[in-house]
Amino acid sequence: MSEIIRFNSDYTEGCHPAILEKLSETNMVQTPGYGEDEYCAEAAGRIKEACKAPEADVHFLVGGTQTNVTVISAALKHYQGVITAQSGHINVHETGALEACGHKCLVLESPDGKLTAVQVAQYTDEHFADESFEHMVQPKMVYISNPTEVGTIYSKAELMELYQVCKERGLYLFMDGARLGYGLMCSKNDMTLEDIAQYTDVFYIGGTKVGALFGEAVVITNDELKQDFRYNIKQRGGMLAKGRLLGVQFMTLFEDNRYFTISAHAARLAEKLKDALAEIGVEFSIASPTNQQFPILEDEVLAQLKEKYSYSYMGRYDEKRSVVRFCTSWATKEENIDSLIADIRSMIEKK
Amino acid sequence: MSEIIRFNSDYTEGCHPAILEKLSETNMVQTPGYGEDEYCAEAAGRIKEACKAPEADVHFLVGGTQTNVTVISAALKHYQGVITAQSGHINVHETGALEACGHKCLVLESPDGKLTAVQVAQYTDEHFADESFEHMVQPKMVYISNPTEVGTIYSKAELMELYQVCKERGLYLFMDGARLGYGLMCSKNDMTLEDIAQYTDVFYIGGTKVGALFGEAVVITNDELKQDFRYNIKQRGGMLAKGRLLGVQFMTLFEDNRYFTISAHAARLAEKLKDALAEIGVEFSIASPTNQQFPILEDEVLAQLKEKYSYSYMGRYDEKRSVVRFCTSWATKEENIDSLIADIRSMIEKK
Amino acid sequence: MSEIIRFNSDYTEGCHPAILEKLSETNMVQTPGYGEDEYCAEAAGRIKEACKAPEADVHFLVGGTQTNVTVISAALKHYQGVITAQSGHINVHETGALEACGHKCLVLESPDGKLTAVQVAQYTDEHFADESFEHMVQPKMVYISNPTEVGTIYSKAELMELYQVCKERGLYLFMDGARLGYGLMCSKNDMTLEDIAQYTDVFYIGGTKVGALFGEAVVITNDELKQDFRYNIKQRGGMLAKGRLLGVQFMTLFEDNRYFTISAHAARLAEKLKDALAEIGVEFSIASPTNQQFPILEDEVLAQLKEKYSYSYMGRYDEKRSVVRFCTSWATKEENIDSLIADIRSMIEKK
Amino acid sequence: MSEIIRFNSDYTEGCHPAILEKLSETNMVQTPGYGEDEYCAEAAGRIKEACKAPEADVHFLVGGTQTNVTVISAALKHYQGVITAQSGHINVHETGALEACGHKCLVLESPDGKLTAVQVAQYTDEHFADESFEHMVQPKMVYISNPTEVGTIYSKAELMELYQVCKERGLYLFMDGARLGYGLMCSKNDMTLEDIAQYTDVFYIGGTKVGALFGEAVVITNDELKQDFRYNIKQRGGMLAKGRLLGVQFMTLFEDNRYFTISAHAARLAEKLKDALAEIGVEFSIASPTNQQFPILEDEVLAQLKEKYSYSYMGRYDEKRSVVRFCTSWATKEENIDSLIADIRSMIEKK
Repeated sequence: MSEIIRFNSDYTEGCHPAILEKLSETNMVQTPGYGEDEYCAEAAGRIKEACKAPEADVHFLVGGTQTNVTVISAALKHYQGVITAQSGHINVHETGALEACGHKCLVLESPDGKLTAVQVAQYTDEHFADESFEHMVQPKMVYISNPTEVGTIYSKAELMELYQVCKERGLYLFMDGARLGYGLMCSKNDMTLEDIAQYTDVFYIGGTKVGALFGEAVVITNDELKQDFRYNIKQRGGMLAKGRLLGVQFMTLFEDNRYFTISAHAARLAEKLKDALAEIGVEFSIASPTNQQFPILEDEVLAQLKEKYSYSYMGRYDEKRSVVRFCTSWATKEENIDSLIADIRSMIEKK
Repeated sequence: MSEIIRFNSDYTEGCHPAILEKLSETNMVQTPGYGEDEYCAEAAGRIKEACKAPEADVHFLVGGTQTNVTVISAALKHYQGVITAQSGHINVHETGALEACGHKCLVLESPDGKLTAVQVAQYTDEHFADESFEHMVQPKMVYISNPTEVGTIYSKAELMELYQVCKERGLYLFMDGARLGYGLMCSKNDMTLEDIAQYTDVFYIGGTKVGALFGEAVVITNDELKQDFRYNIKQRGGMLAKGRLLGVQFMTLFEDNRYFTISAHAARLAEKLKDALAEIGVEFSIASPTNQQFPILEDEVLAQLKEKYSYSYMGRYDEKRSVVRFCTSWATKEENIDSLIADIRSMIEKK
Repeated sequence: MSEIIRFNSDYTEGCHPAILEKLSETNMVQTPGYGEDEYCAEAAGRIKEACKAPEADVHFLVGGTQTNVTVISAALKHYQGVITAQSGHINVHETGALEACGHKCLVLESPDGKLTAVQVAQYTDEHFADESFEHMVQPKMVYISNPTEVGTIYSKAELMELYQVCKERGLYLFMDGARLGYGLMCSKNDMTLEDIAQYTDVFYIGGTKVGALFGEAVVITNDELKQDFRYNIKQRGGMLAKGRLLGVQFMTLFEDNRYFTISAHAARLAEKLKDALAEIGVEFSIASPTNQQFPILEDEVLAQLKEKYSYSYMGRYDEKRSVVRFCTSWATKEENIDSLIADIRSMIEKK
Repeated sequence: MSEIIRFNSDYTEGCHPAILEKLSETNMVQTPGYGEDEYCAEAAGRIKEACKAPEADVHFLVGGTQTNVTVISAALKHYQGVITAQSGHINVHETGALEACGHKCLVLESPDGKLTAVQVAQYTDEHFADESFEHMVQPKMVYISNPTEVGTIYSKAELMELYQVCKERGLYLFMDGARLGYGLMCSKNDMTLEDIAQYTDVFYIGGTKVGALFGEAVVITNDELKQDFRYNIKQRGGMLAKGRLLGVQFMTLFEDNRYFTISAHAARLAEKLKDALAEIGVEFSIASPTNQQFPILEDEVLAQLKEKYSYSYMGRYDEKRSVVRFCTSWATKEENIDSLIADIRSMIEKK
């Protein structure tokens, strides 16, 4: 349709060819609806195995906003809220979907998009120490994204500390893994799926941005959150009639290590871009080890780039420079990264 | 997966092969996200043409519950509700999704799943005549499904009367067309898409049950309902990141008259089943001219049938008989209908 | 202000003089806010004593709609609903306040405004037996009003059966006692406050209609419903800054048996009216033993009455007659009832 | 009850004696319910006169949280939010009541509790300039409190600028006047009720904290916000059955300039306290010209004070000092302020 090379997001193509193939192969097979088919069962089994969490419940939903809203509203009572970093997707980019379900985002400052155990402990302890605590929303869940909206990731130690603080204070810990593969496969990462299953109460494995047409796999390990979860999915509009589509997709992603292999590809290309830009003196608004890179580029350079590439405009940095975002994904062609690097280099050197 | 022949619903297979083909063909094309791609534009254009409604707004959502909730909550203020038949999908089978958005279903009795202009006029007039009107939810929208949940359809005259009553009383008229194709192509129907566009304020054309993997196309003709609709889609979790998938699907359904051709197939097979059963003396709980048939069968017969076919159990009719539902769809094989008819006939005759 | 004698509702005057006196007496005493004062503590103590429920939690709210919404939404998760009679106040006369909190009314037919144990058992059992149960709102609470909106009352046996059915099915039983005094003190009643405390999970004792300026006392006996209840009160706008006003009022109502004495007055006058009208051949739309009476009167008679008395118009009965409501209350003067009776008698006899 | 002298809030007593007197005088008069009585009409008339806004609609609600929620949710569509200072009451101290109605607080930083026209313009303009604007809550209303939660007030010029920015951007401007009297009558103030009526779309005049037992008078000047407002009051639980109580109270407050006279008393005593403390070297966390004063006192001093006076603890200032709040009100006795000043002086001088 367009000749622009798109780096503005990680959902610019359809899906991994193996998924399309499997969808074609199973297309005319008749199944029950609403996720009660054998493909979903198979996919759930593979995910539980990958998480080494045989007791977990696995549910498949269509998109990220829907998943966040369903998980969080299922866990909270009306007067409870969720602690989130200022930059949390639920706080910024979901048109108040969570508030529309009645719940407040309890917002903590975070320059790097992450929450620390200390912050969460302090906020929660202050709530309950305040003489007017009943006049404020009660914190009951902590929402983190990994990778975060600005590309950073949690270390295993950080996650464990957060989880411990949550357990001590009766809070649920929920990880939004819309880009989980890109976090797990970047070179800085020291966590496994198993760690995440162990040190959260519920999390999801993003498919939409990592090889699927759409779909997010929710993994619930805390028994308190398991009960009646499907009612919540239905109420929030996330129960796909042909749930099999989600089953087939996740079955294929979790076959032959595919989810990890395709994620590693995106992570490697992002790193390639990052290193190359750093080498020619480009600064970044944040040090992201994952598939989203946030370079600070001169407006002149950006104007030229725009004719050939798309990127996301994040905001002005100073009088002459702006922050933008380039994303890689499972679908990114190495030749396009190479040409992007070459073009930026030549534009900068010309000046 | 199973050797059972499924008639329990109209979403037991994947999608029409032409759609899969188009999805494959466009898979690696890069597009903008969230429905702002050229496929969506093309699909919207075709739908507006089919509706002869060049000024309409067309939006694509993923599923029916989500669509109902988004359309209705976008139209209503907090204290307003939607008039619906008792059997309306929003009232029965959406786990209170609408109430979860804050709106009450204003329920009218309806043995055939339809609302009449007289009913709506009376209910609304009584509301405003009541001295306690401010203590009750204000009616502001009428929700009808066509075909209804029990397979019946509106005549053009009925729709026009309803619309007129709505206009006189300041009500919006919304048609849930989850199975619209099966209604429009059944032999009893006297309406066109154009009529529907003209005599409603907003309606949707169902894809999930009519040839697509998923997807519903909302057509808004009333200007009052157009503003900011995309905020509502996003808030209710219905804004698909890869919106292109919806565009590609509806583009394909509205190419070469496909939506109507495949619907006609399902309608014809349903009629075949209906006529054949009637001929051997089977009664129906309701006279449905569309792809859902509700025969009353002896429990013994049902027990036998179950080993080879799936159907939906609707409820007990009398001591020995129950009402069940058989659905046909775009994907139904004529040979399976023939064998179903033959089997029922032989079971009944044997007795 | 007006010379009309009002029988249209039971909240046409201010409050019992003893309450005004106590409010004056305590007016300049300084107290903590939000119901944490000594008057509230004292009032709660007296109510627990009257209920013989020392372990109960007692909270004071301002009005009935607010109380219903707060109690019900505190008890339910998002996907759960409350079973109610069609005529239930929450279903009809609260402008969808409960739906505005996200919860559906699960409506059962009831000509006399009451729910039976059998109805509740059947509805709940059918829900869980339905293969699509997750697509429907889950019943979790039963709402009854006593007296009902049409003046009827539950017998102790009926309440005990309902409670048992609820306990067997994991449902909470909530009694709206907006007019509780008028029920408890009518001659048909066989229940005590103690019975109600024992055979419900939560109920409230209405003050607004029974002698107070305003105020409802919620009594929670089920421990599951006690936790964090004050957060809910605050969130739903029911936490009165000068909570002391509620304490003072209920302290006074539950002093010297006052709540019961003043209720008995209203019940006696209602019975007087009822018996007198019956004697002259007036029929009633429902047999109410409490302070609301629903005679069927000729439109001509009603037109004449209107010049001297106010009543609530309930609806047309037949071509010539309508149903209206007359209420007595703690404040009703016997002379006014006598004159009402005399006037109706004379109007009817003249014809 | 207690011998502590309370300065912790401005709602520690009942109401102004003139109100109690009027309540007694009118107690047995029969009136219609729900605010449709003559006292409410009279009170509304007096308020419109005081505001020089004959076309305004005036409604009476019970408390502040309820009023904020009702006004804001009546004005917004589901996907719209309200801009507020971080310290705004709706954002901090209403247990998420607004989010429970589905609306997000769009929070701006503000050290002095006030919003500036520039902030609002910038936030709104950035929203609509962002390419992802539909993924974020749409700003539609600006909430300000005057006096603010930290005692500061808007100048007339500031209000006019804010209002102009709002009008240019299609935003409603709503002023929470829970303590309005104390703002209008402080020596720094340069605004009148008339100015406020002119430069807001809706505001309320607080009664609860300014002489009434309870009650807030909402004044709506923008026609768009007038329609169907009473449905909203009922839905949010704010429609008092005996609405007359609100009418009587505001009728009395707006008789003989009483609202202003009693407010001036509180403002004068607050200033006396402030000046006296400043004179002996006490610093304040914020320069408040109104009835709330926030001195920074040594913990030792506070410990001593606590035995005789109550205050609100706001938070630690440094290792040895904390910020506390003292409130004056219409009911504050000058002798108590004098003794408070004398005690603090003597404690500080002793050290």
